[in-house]
Amino acid sequence: MIVIMKVNAPQKAIDRVQQEIEKLSYTPHLVEGATRTVIGVLGKKPLRGMQHLQSLPEVSDVLEISTPYKLASREWQPKDTIVNVGPARIGGDTVTIIAGPCSIESYEQIKIVGEAVKASGGHLLRGGAFKPRTSPYAFQGLGVEGLKMISQVGKEVGLPTVVEVTDTDVLEVTAEYTDMLQIGTRNMQNFTLLKAAARTKMPILLKRGMSATIKETILAAEYILNEGNKQVVLCERGIRTFVDHTRNTLDVSAIPAFHRLSHLPVIVDPSHAAGKRHKVLPLALAGVAAGAQGVMVEVHPNPEVALSDGPQQLVPEDFQDLVERVRIVAKAVGKGIE
Amino acid sequence: MIVIMKVNAPQKAIDRVQQEIEKLSYTPHLVEGATRTVIGVLGKKPLRGMQHLQSLPEVSDVLEISTPYKLASREWQPKDTIVNVGPARIGGDTVTIIAGPCSIESYEQIKIVGEAVKASGGHLLRGGAFKPRTSPYAFQGLGVEGLKMISQVGKEVGLPTVVEVTDTDVLEVTAEYTDMLQIGTRNMQNFTLLKAAARTKMPILLKRGMSATIKETILAAEYILNEGNKQVVLCERGIRTFVDHTRNTLDVSAIPAFHRLSHLPVIVDPSHAAGKRHKVLPLALAGVAAGAQGVMVEVHPNPEVALSDGPQQLVPEDFQDLVERVRIVAKAVGKGIE
Amino acid sequence: MIVIMKVNAPQKAIDRVQQEIEKLSYTPHLVEGATRTVIGVLGKKPLRGMQHLQSLPEVSDVLEISTPYKLASREWQPKDTIVNVGPARIGGDTVTIIAGPCSIESYEQIKIVGEAVKASGGHLLRGGAFKPRTSPYAFQGLGVEGLKMISQVGKEVGLPTVVEVTDTDVLEVTAEYTDMLQIGTRNMQNFTLLKAAARTKMPILLKRGMSATIKETILAAEYILNEGNKQVVLCERGIRTFVDHTRNTLDVSAIPAFHRLSHLPVIVDPSHAAGKRHKVLPLALAGVAAGAQGVMVEVHPNPEVALSDGPQQLVPEDFQDLVERVRIVAKAVGKGIE
Amino acid sequence: MIVIMKVNAPQKAIDRVQQEIEKLSYTPHLVEGATRTVIGVLGKKPLRGMQHLQSLPEVSDVLEISTPYKLASREWQPKDTIVNVGPARIGGDTVTIIAGPCSIESYEQIKIVGEAVKASGGHLLRGGAFKPRTSPYAFQGLGVEGLKMISQVGKEVGLPTVVEVTDTDVLEVTAEYTDMLQIGTRNMQNFTLLKAAARTKMPILLKRGMSATIKETILAAEYILNEGNKQVVLCERGIRTFVDHTRNTLDVSAIPAFHRLSHLPVIVDPSHAAGKRHKVLPLALAGVAAGAQGVMVEVHPNPEVALSDGPQQLVPEDFQDLVERVRIVAKAVGKGIE
Repeated sequence: MIVIMKVNAPQKAIDRVQQEIEKLSYTPHLVEGATRTVIGVLGKKPLRGMQHLQSLPEVSDVLEISTPYKLASREWQPKDTIVNVGPARIGGDTVTIIAGPCSIESYEQIKIVGEAVKASGGHLLRGGAFKPRTSPYAFQGLGVEGLKMISQVGKEVGLPTVVEVTDTDVLEVTAEYTDMLQIGTRNMQNFTLLKAAARTKMPILLKRGMSATIKETILAAEYILNEGNKQVVLCERGIRTFVDHTRNTLDVSAIPAFHRLSHLPVIVDPSHAAGKRHKVLPLALAGVAAGAQGVMVEVHPNPEVALSDGPQQLVPEDFQDLVERVRIVAKAVGKGIE
Repeated sequence: MIVIMKVNAPQKAIDRVQQEIEKLSYTPHLVEGATRTVIGVLGKKPLRGMQHLQSLPEVSDVLEISTPYKLASREWQPKDTIVNVGPARIGGDTVTIIAGPCSIESYEQIKIVGEAVKASGGHLLRGGAFKPRTSPYAFQGLGVEGLKMISQVGKEVGLPTVVEVTDTDVLEVTAEYTDMLQIGTRNMQNFTLLKAAARTKMPILLKRGMSATIKETILAAEYILNEGNKQVVLCERGIRTFVDHTRNTLDVSAIPAFHRLSHLPVIVDPSHAAGKRHKVLPLALAGVAAGAQGVMVEVHPNPEVALSDGPQQLVPEDFQDLVERVRIVAKAVGKGIE
Repeated sequence: MIVIMKVNAPQKAIDRVQQEIEKLSYTPHLVEGATRTVIGVLGKKPLRGMQHLQSLPEVSDVLEISTPYKLASREWQPKDTIVNVGPARIGGDTVTIIAGPCSIESYEQIKIVGEAVKASGGHLLRGGAFKPRTSPYAFQGLGVEGLKMISQVGKEVGLPTVVEVTDTDVLEVTAEYTDMLQIGTRNMQNFTLLKAAARTKMPILLKRGMSATIKETILAAEYILNEGNKQVVLCERGIRTFVDHTRNTLDVSAIPAFHRLSHLPVIVDPSHAAGKRHKVLPLALAGVAAGAQGVMVEVHPNPEVALSDGPQQLVPEDFQDLVERVRIVAKAVGKGIE
Repeated sequence: MIVIMKVNAPQKAIDRVQQEIEKLSYTPHLVEGATRTVIGVLGKKPLRGMQHLQSLPEVSDVLEISTPYKLASREWQPKDTIVNVGPARIGGDTVTIIAGPCSIESYEQIKIVGEAVKASGGHLLRGGAFKPRTSPYAFQGLGVEGLKMISQVGKEVGLPTVVEVTDTDVLEVTAEYTDMLQIGTRNMQNFTLLKAAARTKMPILLKRGMSATIKETILAAEYILNEGNKQVVLCERGIRTFVDHTRNTLDVSAIPAFHRLSHLPVIVDPSHAAGKRHKVLPLALAGVAAGAQGVMVEVHPNPEVALSDGPQQLVPEDFQDLVERVRIVAKAVGKGIE
């Protein structure tokens, strides 16, 4: 932590800051400039109770300098983490394809999609069973019935599955029927859910919150790692900005930013950011070009009758085309699809 | 819903859109302009399955025109809702003062604050027992012990209490020890929690999500109203923007916007938006001047040793000053503090 | 400037940073923590050529700590600046009222408004002669004819005038016919215009850019002050955020933030932020409650036939009501309207 | 334009809206739903004076449906525009490389860069002569001397040049010494400059404003096209969001959005968005993968002594690597580099 005094702050004010630091059993380090003094506080243990320094007289600003996460940080683990979900692996030099419908709507629907995902070379089957919807009057998902359907289809077509767990009440049943748990964007800071999901020891797909910074996202992952579960995949899915031509703004720069700060794998979800079908492909390719280690897209056999998010779901043919193009771009940036 | 065709769209494409609308048993209404056709679809029941129209050929855009909420809408209930919490009332022409520490830290702490809030003319005592914290290493609250402390102090000083309920696991115990439930900004779209909290039939303080639109916030309230609980207070607490001089940007324009669209009371929380003490007072007054029916602020006997959010908490003397000034501004805009 | 090394950075990397700092003739100050070293660089003269330090090996981050502006800073001039425009004064403990139509449309129109502004106790008459419009097909203003009209009406009703200068081509003529120059939000970083306008020695009303930070806004003012012109008024007029219920989000927290960092007066323009008439009054009052030293609003005798921004302009009666309410709120926060 | 009445609006209010529309000589088209009426107004000529309809009683909302631009719209010109700058072409199925230093600092500097750009297969040489800088104390560019240097080097190495024109005062001289004019992000809505630059009949590189929507950007281009100059290239360079891990957020989704709405070529500038060198390559590749028809990057022989934007400029070796990778990704998405 660095305390920056105002220009020409009197000695008395500087002394006061030093005393407050010492009161908390830390050591202040003075750097005296021509017109301004700054005071460093560095310690092995986390600095507690320091926030109030910014309220002291003649203090201009207080800057945090230590990284607030440790287990998720590349400073402490330089090597990429690889997350395994059954036969699928996420991380390192490969691009993993995760696909499936927004909502599971029937056995037939998820079966058609599951076969298409498998046939196109996808690695995981996704599908929503419990749907968090902005409106209470929108379709809320098939629930446990949906879980059973995707579980059965996953086995039949030979793909591990990933399903969003929306709250602790449905954690146990979701964990029973699926291979990987997804934490959705609205739950990224539902810390109770993060900890409970972590304790299942299952791999977790953590979506970045709609207005979460990189640091907040890594700290959410840290909640999971701190429970002893290292199988976490980060997912960039678009952020909320002033932009109105798309549902969310896919922040591709988050991908190299995550890679620099953390060893966890990073995938990209272009469907939610796009909102419309014709943007899904360009955003998927952009994500891979920027270094994403996976792509998660929504596929539906018949988007015009989909019960949720119809306009952004791909038909199986478009999905196959997407996988082929992702493969080429992945290769272009030195990655492969297994 | 309005479907806007592209300029000079061929008749065939227009026919196709009409057929799709009729397939779903709605009636299309054509408006033919000089260069462009638009097609209206209006119905009593909600329009389902229409989203895919935007994927049809020659369709330029599809606009929703119906209000997606009903119970919370002023179109359906013009009269202001008044929410009662014990002797305190929120809504209408009064300004209600809610105050207390960010976190409950000890009986002594909450007692000092409770007495100060009562003495200054505050109406509800707030305090955090379960703290959702960005970092897993930060203080997470006293839990049930904290609930017991605020409950006891509330009775001793004669103030109803409001405490945040962070997840369904702690809903029952929180409901047992407090008079009003708060849903925090990170949980505004935790729909399971919204519904479960609603079913307690207790009054609910619903904070706007950090990146939630007005419409999404009212829809979150609609989840509660839809469970038969009409005792909902909306709270503007600052949104996430590019601005870096403050923690969140208090969106005062949300206050008249909520009032125009909904009959629910609206209060303002300047502490979280401000992040720093010297901005709390100006933002509180701004909120009241813009029409807020209440102010919720953080008060701590000794902010420099606070276990959370120290820099934004007021000492009791500053709080008393704030209440007095709020009283004057409230009067200036035709409101009163009871 | 503070250079933060990575955790456990080797001595060699630390030495390298020190050498680079010394190469530029500055003195590095080392602060060695338990796991991390930080290096301070403080100097009287501005630090040039330091940005590249962040590219050196094992450097985690480089933080600027010095204030990049000086003339506009309260650190260097604690006392409030008062800007005088003829008999009107802006700054200190008063609230100045600036009003007039978005666009000057005719002598009759500006005359009616000028008389209404004067009658209601307003201090300056505003009006647009050159209109920067998003679309090339929108009304672009009456130009020099408009300038002559507002100049004449200003004299007739006894109010100094303020008109936006949109580029250097029209600076001379605008300066000839008006008492104060306005720099619009789109021109806040038109540095050529800032410098040229400054050299007229006229008082300048500088609007914050739609996505400008507080620091960038003060730096834009610094361009003017650096030309020897100290008569600058800052204007908060709303920023661009994800919010869609209003045209721009009035950032009331900018008002105390500007006051803390700069001695320049700060006024608020609620009309552009509101976009719609019913929000102008609440936002005006919110601005004053938050400490604004003036309010600028759009007034039109007949908004439904206005050539620009009709929906946000007040009729004279509403304006008179606004002035009365501003007066009450100003008094409530310890200010007056002269 | 569509006027949406409130639920159960009385006939009288509906009549009033119709009368107002007829008063302006347009024809209202009524669509009566079960609970709500909407009124369409469609015409060949632009709808003027309609904005005030939203202030009428019982009107819920007024929606614009017509595209406000025409010359730049793909609705009116389906075929891609190709912009030619000397031997270089921008648009269609090729990816054009534009590179050079942020600021021209000396003949030697721009010569080294020009040779590197040519050697690596770049198509245009860029360089700043007049630098718009946030701080008045930062390096402001070499001015006309810089123009002469880049002009000479362009001829020597055989590359057409592009230089930012910062205001009308320097337009003539900039046009004299360069082959393409750049309008910077801060000037995107400097309409005087747009029109004046357009009248030179030179090709124009128009950067999207930092907080400009797609529609506003296309309308800025429309200003140029409306002067009879069709040689406009749009450039996505990052927008301002809450994100703090990068200088601006590169909005890759803008690329397909621009392509859908307009026939103008779209390129991407990853340097300004990145702010730091290690993000330039991933963002450049992401832009090309999303469909950009060109990449503009900053190259400097010795970034650590650069007078502006050092941390984001590439050294020639990194630039060569970037061109090679862009070539591969361009090919992967069906494009080529000539």
